[in-house]
Amino acid sequence: MMFAKAPNHSSLATAVMLAMSATPLAAQAQDSVEERLSALEEQLAEVKPQATGEQGFSFNTYARSGLLLGGDLQSVPGGPYLTPAGSVGGAVGRLGNEPDTYLEAILNYKQVAENGTQSHYRLMIADSTTSSNDWTAGDGALNVRQAYVEFSNLASFSGIFEDSSIWAGKRFDRDLNFDIHWLDSDIIFLGGLGAGIYDVKFSDNVKSNFSLYGRSFIDFPADTDFVPSGSYSTDNLILTADNYFGNVQWTISGMKAQENDQRLVNGTDTTAAETGVHTMLAYHGDSFFGLSDGNFKVAVLHGQGLGAETKNIGADGNLHEDAVSTRFAVYGTTYLSENWRLAPSILAETSEDRYIKGDEYQWLTFNARLAQEITANFEMQYEASWQTMDLKTMGYDPDGTGSQTARNDVDGNYSRFTIAPTFKPQVGGFWNRPEIRVFASYSTWDDELENYAAGDPLGADSDFESAQWTFGTQMEIWF
Amino acid sequence: MMFAKAPNHSSLATAVMLAMSATPLAAQAQDSVEERLSALEEQLAEVKPQATGEQGFSFNTYARSGLLLGGDLQSVPGGPYLTPAGSVGGAVGRLGNEPDTYLEAILNYKQVAENGTQSHYRLMIADSTTSSNDWTAGDGALNVRQAYVEFSNLASFSGIFEDSSIWAGKRFDRDLNFDIHWLDSDIIFLGGLGAGIYDVKFSDNVKSNFSLYGRSFIDFPADTDFVPSGSYSTDNLILTADNYFGNVQWTISGMKAQENDQRLVNGTDTTAAETGVHTMLAYHGDSFFGLSDGNFKVAVLHGQGLGAETKNIGADGNLHEDAVSTRFAVYGTTYLSENWRLAPSILAETSEDRYIKGDEYQWLTFNARLAQEITANFEMQYEASWQTMDLKTMGYDPDGTGSQTARNDVDGNYSRFTIAPTFKPQVGGFWNRPEIRVFASYSTWDDELENYAAGDPLGADSDFESAQWTFGTQMEIWF
Amino acid sequence: MMFAKAPNHSSLATAVMLAMSATPLAAQAQDSVEERLSALEEQLAEVKPQATGEQGFSFNTYARSGLLLGGDLQSVPGGPYLTPAGSVGGAVGRLGNEPDTYLEAILNYKQVAENGTQSHYRLMIADSTTSSNDWTAGDGALNVRQAYVEFSNLASFSGIFEDSSIWAGKRFDRDLNFDIHWLDSDIIFLGGLGAGIYDVKFSDNVKSNFSLYGRSFIDFPADTDFVPSGSYSTDNLILTADNYFGNVQWTISGMKAQENDQRLVNGTDTTAAETGVHTMLAYHGDSFFGLSDGNFKVAVLHGQGLGAETKNIGADGNLHEDAVSTRFAVYGTTYLSENWRLAPSILAETSEDRYIKGDEYQWLTFNARLAQEITANFEMQYEASWQTMDLKTMGYDPDGTGSQTARNDVDGNYSRFTIAPTFKPQVGGFWNRPEIRVFASYSTWDDELENYAAGDPLGADSDFESAQWTFGTQMEIWF
Repeated sequence: MMFAKAPNHSSLATAVMLAMSATPLAAQAQDSVEERLSALEEQLAEVKPQATGEQGFSFNTYARSGLLLGGDLQSVPGGPYLTPAGSVGGAVGRLGNEPDTYLEAILNYKQVAENGTQSHYRLMIADSTTSSNDWTAGDGALNVRQAYVEFSNLASFSGIFEDSSIWAGKRFDRDLNFDIHWLDSDIIFLGGLGAGIYDVKFSDNVKSNFSLYGRSFIDFPADTDFVPSGSYSTDNLILTADNYFGNVQWTISGMKAQENDQRLVNGTDTTAAETGVHTMLAYHGDSFFGLSDGNFKVAVLHGQGLGAETKNIGADGNLHEDAVSTRFAVYGTTYLSENWRLAPSILAETSEDRYIKGDEYQWLTFNARLAQEITANFEMQYEASWQTMDLKTMGYDPDGTGSQTARNDVDGNYSRFTIAPTFKPQVGGFWNRPEIRVFASYSTWDDELENYAAGDPLGADSDFESAQWTFGTQMEIWF
Repeated sequence: MMFAKAPNHSSLATAVMLAMSATPLAAQAQDSVEERLSALEEQLAEVKPQATGEQGFSFNTYARSGLLLGGDLQSVPGGPYLTPAGSVGGAVGRLGNEPDTYLEAILNYKQVAENGTQSHYRLMIADSTTSSNDWTAGDGALNVRQAYVEFSNLASFSGIFEDSSIWAGKRFDRDLNFDIHWLDSDIIFLGGLGAGIYDVKFSDNVKSNFSLYGRSFIDFPADTDFVPSGSYSTDNLILTADNYFGNVQWTISGMKAQENDQRLVNGTDTTAAETGVHTMLAYHGDSFFGLSDGNFKVAVLHGQGLGAETKNIGADGNLHEDAVSTRFAVYGTTYLSENWRLAPSILAETSEDRYIKGDEYQWLTFNARLAQEITANFEMQYEASWQTMDLKTMGYDPDGTGSQTARNDVDGNYSRFTIAPTFKPQVGGFWNRPEIRVFASYSTWDDELENYAAGDPLGADSDFESAQWTFGTQMEIWF
Repeated sequence: MMFAKAPNHSSLATAVMLAMSATPLAAQAQDSVEERLSALEEQLAEVKPQATGEQGFSFNTYARSGLLLGGDLQSVPGGPYLTPAGSVGGAVGRLGNEPDTYLEAILNYKQVAENGTQSHYRLMIADSTTSSNDWTAGDGALNVRQAYVEFSNLASFSGIFEDSSIWAGKRFDRDLNFDIHWLDSDIIFLGGLGAGIYDVKFSDNVKSNFSLYGRSFIDFPADTDFVPSGSYSTDNLILTADNYFGNVQWTISGMKAQENDQRLVNGTDTTAAETGVHTMLAYHGDSFFGLSDGNFKVAVLHGQGLGAETKNIGADGNLHEDAVSTRFAVYGTTYLSENWRLAPSILAETSEDRYIKGDEYQWLTFNARLAQEITANFEMQYEASWQTMDLKTMGYDPDGTGSQTARNDVDGNYSRFTIAPTFKPQVGGFWNRPEIRVFASYSTWDDELENYAAGDPLGADSDFESAQWTFGTQMEIWF
């Protein structure tokens, strides 16, 4: 007995009940109960994965939206990358430091073939704006960041490929994509358009992922002796092997952007890298450095040429052919007591010959987020950041025009401290969201840092100076 | 007994049935039925809120899409704000008067924490275009209008906050956001980026909402004696208390946009308001003015300075520091007989020193929508609008350039009448949608109204003159 | 007994069970089982259509995303329309020939009124870009392609309208919208903003659809002797009757774009069509040309004036008033053996006086996709295309400026062959998706084809020449 047509169902059920009540034999009625139970169980087994998003459509999100104000009640510059070191990846703490509405709307569709092979289509639409208005057609940036399919549990795969997944399209890598949340900085990020395979298992303890990603270097100035026009494009192709030995991860990437050596840097310099190599050694710990419950991650990254952008692999086409960068990242999370939790982190990098032969970039950020859980819905959050930087730019101009936006040498420190009374549906843990916060921050920096580049946040105008109080409100959610 | 793995379910159920049929004791079989019933009930209780959108993902929409043609079979200008009074909020009737595709796609995600606290994330993506084409990458306006979270039923809230909700992010206010639907005009609208609390209950009959909204005033010309560059931005911060005493609503807002007094209006005038105040007194009636079944709303709004944009609170940065506006809005809905229903409305405003010291804007719109319900799927709709206006602009130019787009004084009347045969899934009531309409409208206006501003709809070209017939087709939906 | 409140359910069920176990009479317990079964059946009948998307929200998609590289490891031009004939609709095979990420995200919402009338709201958001990057705010093209409602099963419709559906809004036509998939070319496409009725049934075997679509011709240069400014817009209104006699489809459309004859073509020519007529005769076969199992479609299309764009009805406003086009399309699908399947197709067109009096466009494409199904998840796909073209353009310049982008006469052939190892969740049939492919293509063309127009893909630069190998990877999905 199937109830395919919903509108007829109740009357049909009623009819069945009436028929049953007239049945002379209890056994027969019992059979009918069995049939109805089986039918219900069967239908519910079909319906349940659809309703819960295990199959069919499901929705995921990351979003934040906040108001960041200075003492004069006007918006101020902000964001974890607001210091000069931020221009080369040196993030500071994000709490009470984000002036934008940024969101990712992720639409998934999952299917299971009759042979058991699973497929997952993912579409991510994202937007970013610093406008507070409710109509941002002129200020927003809606765009598609991901559109890919991934197959898993493939019916015909066996041996070392038995548990493998394959994918193609535009995506953020599944594994080369983990962050220090409190700095809004990935430790490593690999994204673009390509194809790959995950979870080739060589043994219980050893597995690898392999991928080819392309990225577009678009409309850069190029040497017209070699290429026809002054505005040029090419592709950076990145081959990666990402390998796991228990808790240890070792990643190696090689990349090539054909004819990127014809790119003009600072107007005349034609020494941009055409190739690059990048590697990361990381450990994913399941305690707080062996000291207490929690977790930690530590990573050392090293890159040369096009690989010298250590975080966002292969994304920077201005890198010098001799560029060398080494980055260190570590963070951990733990409870100090029943109600207090702590997440400290360090991110640091040194790089040389990065954009111009002879330049040198060095920076280090220390950050700690501390939280005191007070009621079921309320906690106090505190965050302290300290960053030191010594940037010798050789007059590098990222626009390639060698003029107004050129960067000057700076050497100095930046500090900020934030206190944020925070509401959440259920207090507890480092990753519980959504949160609704109000916050106040105090930040100071060496005046020298204001000379890095025209239009830079620090020193942008006389309303935003060192020894600055800022405050505001923000929501943050992911699911 | 749980049936977590869908694919195994039927065989498991069959096995259970076989096992049961072999059971010697009826009591034991009965237990098993109990267990299966309980398991089903439990699973269904989990699945149901997910399937219906009570929890997890749900989708809401407002959308309209129509073709509005003149007698020469070409698109004509349209929209409720097409008259000169429309430039200061004076809407006329919308039926048969909308030339655009406008839509809001609302993606919700609702969660319930273990402690019972509920959270609701809402993302609204909107688009607007007058192009009829199926590819509008160059003409559309896709953007994010809302992205916020709201917590309700907070486990740790008690006393006057027991039933309160809190929110943060970019949003349309939940309550300061109700309209005269037939004019496509909100009576009041508050939106932007901020945070707030709803439903602080002082007594059974008295409750209040409190909020802080920021809005961005972006890229306006400013006095270079005070600010470094000619193009300037600031933030308008709006603090609001919205209070309810039974059916009576009293709302009061104060706002400040730091340094907005350095804005240049009409090229040279530096008397833009830096602060403002806005208040509304409204009554939400649950009959048709006490005369018959139905509903009505009546509101008086008053604002000064930045508060003198009475509808869209805090959204107009060009307002004069001495600006004073008073608006009156009333509408009601009722059935005249079993098949005829009527919704009359009045919207009127007077404002002085609005943008230029000495200007005066006065307008009044009367509108009535009448419908005759004919079959289960069909009704005839009629709408009549009459608007009178007397606008003394003092040569105000909203672009701030003091030239081409400057507005001239006008004094006159506008009338339109529309007849719209309408299909809908189920006829009945004022708010049943979707609707599919065809329509014809006749409109007339005083020729003087054509001189208001260059490029204005009225008198835009010789194909769109007073005593105009227009016609077309449209769909409208919300859910 | 209803379990409306999910959170209370289990305890309620437990209470019921406890109560039942205490019941002295078995009959009473049995009643209770009946009640619980009925309640479950009723709730499941409500929940099921919501969970499966039969009612409420559902999600559909078409998407592809791929990397198309030349031998130098840089992106190359591509797409089925890359040849000169492509500029007038002459597609070649798409396998291994698509350099873009294109996707359609379709959000549906279906409702059933109490009287049984069904409504379906459909919103389609689409994007297109050739950038491989994961942030394409500057390169993407997110826009709304469809937003319409359709009512079916109308309670009050009877007679020939009993099974009819009506619709209004912006849409792709339901029926005038079918393609030769392997060419990425519709055989016919009708889209825009309007209203219509489907399935007016005159007899068991004869039914018709009627529609009015508007399309916008936007910002074209016009003769200033007649219209005020140099940049002008108008609307093309298309009335269509689409009729079915068994497997035979006969479609006739008339269209008018008021004052389109004031359009300037090539700077000075004012002979653009103001009206047009278009017709198609098609046969939808349910075997492979009567030879074997499979399907086939064959169509002849003819258009004059604005109707001379034979595929995309009414979409080209530059057509000459004397333009005449005739297109032929045929394809079929069949299995050659248990594991080999074949889909051959031909698309050809001849048109005269298309844009300039005296021009002549003739092209023919032959394409065949062959696939060998190897394992449950893997098949080899092969595609061969051959296109011949003879285009006499009379110096036509689609930009209307009569200069740089002007097209030259070309006469020659283009060939391409692709081999594509392909993974899919379940091999079998022509329409099973998603697919993940890697591919290599070889293409050759007559050098003369490189002179068609400046910036054209063929001959765009010295890295993309005849006798070209290209390769890459791509995903394709629809659901």
